[in-house]
Amino acid sequence: MKNVCVLAYSGGLDTSAIIPWLIENYDIDVIAYCCNVGNLPPENELKERALKLGAREFIYEEAQDEFVNDFVYPMLRAGAKYLDDYLLGTAIARPLIAARVAAFAKSRQAKFIAHGATGKGNDHIRFERAWAYLCPDIKIIAPWKIWDYRSREELIKYLATVGMNWGAGNKAYSVDLNTFHRSCEGGDLEDIRHSYSEAEVLEWTSVDVKQTSTEVSLVIESGKIVQLDGKAMSPKSVVEELNKLGSKYGIGLCDIVEERINGIKSRGVYETPGGTIAHEALKALKQICWSRELYQLAQSMSREFGQLIYDGHWFSDHSSAVDGFFKSASKKLTGEVLLLIGPRSLRVLSRQSPFSLYRPEVASFESDQLDIHKAAMGYTKILTLSSLIQGQRAEAKV
Amino acid sequence: MKNVCVLAYSGGLDTSAIIPWLIENYDIDVIAYCCNVGNLPPENELKERALKLGAREFIYEEAQDEFVNDFVYPMLRAGAKYLDDYLLGTAIARPLIAARVAAFAKSRQAKFIAHGATGKGNDHIRFERAWAYLCPDIKIIAPWKIWDYRSREELIKYLATVGMNWGAGNKAYSVDLNTFHRSCEGGDLEDIRHSYSEAEVLEWTSVDVKQTSTEVSLVIESGKIVQLDGKAMSPKSVVEELNKLGSKYGIGLCDIVEERINGIKSRGVYETPGGTIAHEALKALKQICWSRELYQLAQSMSREFGQLIYDGHWFSDHSSAVDGFFKSASKKLTGEVLLLIGPRSLRVLSRQSPFSLYRPEVASFESDQLDIHKAAMGYTKILTLSSLIQGQRAEAKV
Amino acid sequence: MKNVCVLAYSGGLDTSAIIPWLIENYDIDVIAYCCNVGNLPPENELKERALKLGAREFIYEEAQDEFVNDFVYPMLRAGAKYLDDYLLGTAIARPLIAARVAAFAKSRQAKFIAHGATGKGNDHIRFERAWAYLCPDIKIIAPWKIWDYRSREELIKYLATVGMNWGAGNKAYSVDLNTFHRSCEGGDLEDIRHSYSEAEVLEWTSVDVKQTSTEVSLVIESGKIVQLDGKAMSPKSVVEELNKLGSKYGIGLCDIVEERINGIKSRGVYETPGGTIAHEALKALKQICWSRELYQLAQSMSREFGQLIYDGHWFSDHSSAVDGFFKSASKKLTGEVLLLIGPRSLRVLSRQSPFSLYRPEVASFESDQLDIHKAAMGYTKILTLSSLIQGQRAEAKV
Amino acid sequence: MKNVCVLAYSGGLDTSAIIPWLIENYDIDVIAYCCNVGNLPPENELKERALKLGAREFIYEEAQDEFVNDFVYPMLRAGAKYLDDYLLGTAIARPLIAARVAAFAKSRQAKFIAHGATGKGNDHIRFERAWAYLCPDIKIIAPWKIWDYRSREELIKYLATVGMNWGAGNKAYSVDLNTFHRSCEGGDLEDIRHSYSEAEVLEWTSVDVKQTSTEVSLVIESGKIVQLDGKAMSPKSVVEELNKLGSKYGIGLCDIVEERINGIKSRGVYETPGGTIAHEALKALKQICWSRELYQLAQSMSREFGQLIYDGHWFSDHSSAVDGFFKSASKKLTGEVLLLIGPRSLRVLSRQSPFSLYRPEVASFESDQLDIHKAAMGYTKILTLSSLIQGQRAEAKV
Repeated sequence: MKNVCVLAYSGGLDTSAIIPWLIENYDIDVIAYCCNVGNLPPENELKERALKLGAREFIYEEAQDEFVNDFVYPMLRAGAKYLDDYLLGTAIARPLIAARVAAFAKSRQAKFIAHGATGKGNDHIRFERAWAYLCPDIKIIAPWKIWDYRSREELIKYLATVGMNWGAGNKAYSVDLNTFHRSCEGGDLEDIRHSYSEAEVLEWTSVDVKQTSTEVSLVIESGKIVQLDGKAMSPKSVVEELNKLGSKYGIGLCDIVEERINGIKSRGVYETPGGTIAHEALKALKQICWSRELYQLAQSMSREFGQLIYDGHWFSDHSSAVDGFFKSASKKLTGEVLLLIGPRSLRVLSRQSPFSLYRPEVASFESDQLDIHKAAMGYTKILTLSSLIQGQRAEAKV
Repeated sequence: MKNVCVLAYSGGLDTSAIIPWLIENYDIDVIAYCCNVGNLPPENELKERALKLGAREFIYEEAQDEFVNDFVYPMLRAGAKYLDDYLLGTAIARPLIAARVAAFAKSRQAKFIAHGATGKGNDHIRFERAWAYLCPDIKIIAPWKIWDYRSREELIKYLATVGMNWGAGNKAYSVDLNTFHRSCEGGDLEDIRHSYSEAEVLEWTSVDVKQTSTEVSLVIESGKIVQLDGKAMSPKSVVEELNKLGSKYGIGLCDIVEERINGIKSRGVYETPGGTIAHEALKALKQICWSRELYQLAQSMSREFGQLIYDGHWFSDHSSAVDGFFKSASKKLTGEVLLLIGPRSLRVLSRQSPFSLYRPEVASFESDQLDIHKAAMGYTKILTLSSLIQGQRAEAKV
Repeated sequence: MKNVCVLAYSGGLDTSAIIPWLIENYDIDVIAYCCNVGNLPPENELKERALKLGAREFIYEEAQDEFVNDFVYPMLRAGAKYLDDYLLGTAIARPLIAARVAAFAKSRQAKFIAHGATGKGNDHIRFERAWAYLCPDIKIIAPWKIWDYRSREELIKYLATVGMNWGAGNKAYSVDLNTFHRSCEGGDLEDIRHSYSEAEVLEWTSVDVKQTSTEVSLVIESGKIVQLDGKAMSPKSVVEELNKLGSKYGIGLCDIVEERINGIKSRGVYETPGGTIAHEALKALKQICWSRELYQLAQSMSREFGQLIYDGHWFSDHSSAVDGFFKSASKKLTGEVLLLIGPRSLRVLSRQSPFSLYRPEVASFESDQLDIHKAAMGYTKILTLSSLIQGQRAEAKV
Repeated sequence: MKNVCVLAYSGGLDTSAIIPWLIENYDIDVIAYCCNVGNLPPENELKERALKLGAREFIYEEAQDEFVNDFVYPMLRAGAKYLDDYLLGTAIARPLIAARVAAFAKSRQAKFIAHGATGKGNDHIRFERAWAYLCPDIKIIAPWKIWDYRSREELIKYLATVGMNWGAGNKAYSVDLNTFHRSCEGGDLEDIRHSYSEAEVLEWTSVDVKQTSTEVSLVIESGKIVQLDGKAMSPKSVVEELNKLGSKYGIGLCDIVEERINGIKSRGVYETPGGTIAHEALKALKQICWSRELYQLAQSMSREFGQLIYDGHWFSDHSSAVDGFFKSASKKLTGEVLLLIGPRSLRVLSRQSPFSLYRPEVASFESDQLDIHKAAMGYTKILTLSSLIQGQRAEAKV
């Protein structure tokens, strides 16, 4: 029996071309492994294509629940974003896929893992970092770094030579998709001197956004959204419902020039309607449950976690430690947030928490049960001491 | 001649009551000093009131240009916000007012400075920190920390005893206003279980936002907006024009539960239409002009600067050093950003810079002049080494 | 029966004077509560004095084990210091004492808690922060903020009036002491233009340090030192043994100008021999067990934790979250470090860990099993891309 | 005339072998360029060797003054270290050498630059990053990434084939040297289970350290040391004098397991006697001239700058911005520090500054001109408010 290579298969042009190419170039059997995070065409279609192209075996696993539970939710709890704007929808799916592929490959004593990511983007780094960590003894084959094909056209031509007619299929953009988000890059998006055509680029977002508005209530427990409008829901259902809602109202578009891990700036258009709503609701709750010092430290940690996720470091002691921070910080991040969703806009209508630190009777200028006004005399006297000392120094010496 | 007390006068109820109260309680002459940052009623009206209440002298200085030039613009360049959302419109006016009052007080050899801020908010700390630094030898009188009045009603009654009829004037909210922003707090806003009435709370923002959309071009030089739609403008005019524009479209609303310097959480509603547009335009430019590492460090420094401004530390070596960072970082923050302003929404249409690091021919997946795909073989081999070593450790030992 | 006030009693001049003063000024019964963190004179002596001064009851609890286990060890694991130098020996004892006092006071339904810290230092803030959190309903009495006494002499005179002869006892310095450290401030230390007299200031540190050297081995498990020289030991014994060792060799002196929480700079001389050895050993292990990115994030978190401890925020969600970070980060901080202790110096002789990331065969320039030299061609090509793009921009445009 | 390749020449084995190898493998003229940062053998010797090996031209430039002035001093001002311990002596010389080479290469219209760093260390990345930025149009040749030689022995053999007898010369360690520091790695240092032989590894540090002690005074102006013991000195002389002094006393040894840019952990032994003294003196001054908040921010920025220098990002907007921060922060970092240098130890005897924020009369517990004790009542009442609110929440809800 030959050595086995597990290919992270998506049914797209790249991974389809890789099946026969692997067989031609290595003395191996290829298993096409699919792990659905909400991105895949029907299983039958995938299977037929893979086997026709020469795969010895086809595997299909459902992973959407795990994806939202164990990856998207901890990320949302941490408030992670990349460069202020991007909610990391592509990046967060990679460690899950990598982990599933690694576990499957180990179960089959595979010697090789292959993937279809190019050498210019982020995903090859994310996959290879994860596999280096999860299965350091398995060799990775990344055909895009080896073969000489340089475009979709060339891959289509190659597939024709092995008897697969891919169809003209002019794909305007490079699309990524999963339960949590949809993104486009490439094509005319590469000209950042112009905006994009909503009709051509967007699929999740209604071009004619609803002009009315609606309310939605989110119940959050320890940083996890557990109910929508009073109904208990699984994480996956929460994300799907929020996506439907946000899509109608044009919520969650992001048009960013980001910088890839390799230092190349690139432009992406992201649709993350549900994630955007969830992020805002969690933020609203943090503002009442966390002291400002904790909130501010968490801002730094959100940024750190965002970069770790973007860079493909999910599996690392480093990420675990940051997650340990947020797990602890979120113990009392529990309450209810009511949002108003309107055309392209989002507004917090109310927020409540059993752990709220907001105390209107203390805040109010119209009452003063704690006698704060008078205490403020001593308070500012000491609080401003260091400025006074700096000022006296300045006066005396400069 | 008596000792002089310079009162930071705004013509409002608090500082009006303070004039006679100071005269009754101290053996001093009161000079009512006004410094207009876009917040004041007409000079005549102010003057008449101050003198009628017993001020020995009335001074009125225009400060809007300096305000936007020297305070708002460096803050915008730094991308400073407080707790992710608040653009610091109230906080940023305080150091300017404090500096003007201090300079004037010194010029008159005043022994005292008085202000009308209560002991529960932020402004008493901001003013007193600034004065401790700028004029450490002048004694500060903060009547709210001394007298026993505890409400607007009591102040109105007191004013009646000195012959001033303040009028019923039920003020629903505590309002702050300047060239850059408008804010409300107090009243029924203190109940965070409910949203606010746009009609009652907002003044700058149209309740019936425009339903069309419009484009606006901003030319930025070294982090300063210098042209709108091709027309060179002073900073003050830029902010005013952007405010007009944003107001029509309902841009720049913020409904936040913040935490005051003293640890009390409070709710504020802010209208910062122009600042919001400016912030987004600057961010769009940073994304193409700054490396991601610089961008990420700047995120931390923005937060730091935001807290320094919020906390009233504008005048300090600490703030100067952070400003030194942004001054340097912004040397090449030059270019043009075109925005689409629509109802409650904002979108970047294009961004360009002579210092742009965005290079579509490098980013594109459809070409590879630099032969990056193949270089990626060695690149990821080394880049993933540390994950590999972590992985081997994990396999071997855990 | 009268209301009860629990006094955090240490037997020193301040808390001794407070007993009769409380009885004179409030209609309460005073319970003198002692909690030994290694700082107290013999129980008998304390008890006799407290009762003689009028305390209704005297309580003495041993707390050294808990102190080192639950406070010192998590702090050491986190590598916390204040302003680069101070190992926080005074600060870390405060939350423990506060927690014991609070628990005892609650068990007796006490209405009041009193402490002997002055209004100028850090400890009054640390105690009062902790009690605000732990027993918000109990009122705190801080006599130093109330009475008019302003010196030791005045307190001694007052004690004489209640029949207690305190003795001349000229105390040159204000000393703090516990199982973990000893510190001095005040007296001639306040003149920072001069050093201090070792003979007069130091007690733990031999003035004639040993001139030989010795080795000590520390076994660490998940960030906790569990063995010294091959012998399993409790945390308290570890600290005591390391203190003995370090003291002989003059290890762990710190002469710092720190800044108190209230913004006042003050000078302190600290003796932390054992803590210094432990800190260095842990650092040596972190350098081989943590990736540099984790190490660098931990540097920021160490600083944050150091400030939280210094400022008296031990009991807070904020501290818990930072501790959550270090608990996770330290899971694999396990191994053995061998140190050479010589006169005033410390040197790592060896470090080993089952989780070590150090791999000499990878690091060596003399072998290259992984073929890294050649991979470096592609590696630096891509790694330097962003500098290249910056450079081309600079050439073209500036 | 052939294309020119400028080789960064040091006269060592690697760069010596590179001269004939370049000539054999490329159709180019080689210019051997030397830039002395305190690391080079005599010019004559270098010149003779380079020309004998076939270099068309030999260039020697003195760069020690610039090195200390423009690189070491800003780094010291910033307090930069790598992983807490390493004073960056190797890293800081790289950008200077790179800049000199780039400028020279441009002046000769060179098409190529070559260097002798291997593909496993840090220097190839530092050089290539700098050149990518400084001369993006010049192609870099890194023979270690191309040829098949893998050890010193092989290079010596190769040199014999071109008529150069290198001598047996068993070099136990890989040494780096410049005006600021000396380091060793490789050889038996790669076994971190053992310490090193001082006699074999150290050259700058006396094995028999002086047993007496001596004082040294440093006058600092805006973060730069300008006088030693009352004598004005150039930066280079300051570093040289401090090196002499520190060497005698065994100051400034560092035995670290660091992590290279490429993620490989490696062990280095560094001798930085003068830098260590300078670092401590600057720190002592910062403690009295900077507020604790500025000091703490500067700690983060020191770490950032340390990583930028280590990683070879000296030439970047990012580094410039961090340097801008420290330039501003150091404006008032002026004063005098007196140190006691003893065997392997360092102690601050006194520190003074016209900008000192240390005010003994404010700090002292024995006087209270500002009436701080009583003000502390109001101060802590408000300062502990947020803990109180957290505590009430905890009591009520958890």
